[in-house]
Amino acid sequence: MSRQTGRITDIKKVSGELFSLTYGALVAQILKDYENVEEVNRQLEKMGYNIGVRIVEDYLSRTNTTKCTDFRETSEKLQQAMKMYLNVSPQITSWSPANDEFSLVFESNPVGEFVELPENCSNLKYANILCGVVRGALEMVHLEVATSFVQDNLQGDNVTELRVKFLKKIEDTVPPGDD
Amino acid sequence: MSRQTGRITDIKKVSGELFSLTYGALVAQILKDYENVEEVNRQLEKMGYNIGVRIVEDYLSRTNTTKCTDFRETSEKLQQAMKMYLNVSPQITSWSPANDEFSLVFESNPVGEFVELPENCSNLKYANILCGVVRGALEMVHLEVATSFVQDNLQGDNVTELRVKFLKKIEDTVPPGDD
Repeated sequence: MSRQTGRITDIKKVSGELFSLTYGALVAQILKDYENVEEVNRQLEKMGYNIGVRIVEDYLSRTNTTKCTDFRETSEKLQQAMKMYLNVSPQITSWSPANDEFSLVFESNPVGEFVELPENCSNLKYANILCGVVRGALEMVHLEVATSFVQDNLQGDNVTELRVKFLKKIEDTVPPGDD
Repeated sequence: MSRQTGRITDIKKVSGELFSLTYGALVAQILKDYENVEEVNRQLEKMGYNIGVRIVEDYLSRTNTTKCTDFRETSEKLQQAMKMYLNVSPQITSWSPANDEFSLVFESNPVGEFVELPENCSNLKYANILCGVVRGALEMVHLEVATSFVQDNLQGDNVTELRVKFLKKIEDTVPPGDD
């Protein structure tokens, strides 16, 4: 089967509402399991990491993506992936002067439709699974990054902002793997 | 805003792969929390129930569905809902002589893409969340049903079969609610 360069192949789609409700069930379960919200954030990130290291293959094969020449190109690929997988279109903003750090800004929390956080969740990074997905996916293409949510509609901010910071290139001799 | 009868309004779609991986993370977490597989099945069903009682409103408003005249019509609505929310098209088969029981047969496990169960999960009903979704959704339209998976590709069967059995109509005076 041949594929045209640049063409995104068909992707099976499911309901965003079902996804949001299922993700909500996951977060609720983790909240039940770990009383400390910081630990909940860490667990969600870790789950996302494990998803990221798997889903990147799917992304690469569907888009025929080749190696990014710089971090700006990486940011555009992440923007494209958000559209492909979550059907949301974040803005790329707030580049650092050194071009090693940017934000993906979402109009609303991309996995938090229908969600209202209870009062005791003021430090919960509800969408933290996405931090892990991005970190895991980029690690598989030899980029070590730090990711964090610095704004969140669910915490009263006007937008949801995911910050991505380049840390280093990973040498081929160090095999990336599961956390 | 007016809506034509019978027309399904737009529904936000996300990647099926992302959904499957996220659901997999949920199942893995529940397996970690409850050592007994029967209890895991129960928990998944319960989570699905809570999703079903919420998602039914979305389904009704999108499809302008009116009251079903019989259980055959209900089966068709469920088939349609599976297409809408999971992008799968199960066959409706194996009606009981009394027309109070049927199966939805899926070519493969509808939420189990990429999944291979470890050996100690031989009794796991991986997709059991769907049993709960169907039970919860139908309860909100005053139908009490029993649901169970009787075949599962992940357990070595050729298809995945969800059995739905009508139990009784729920009188209006009994308000349905969360488990």
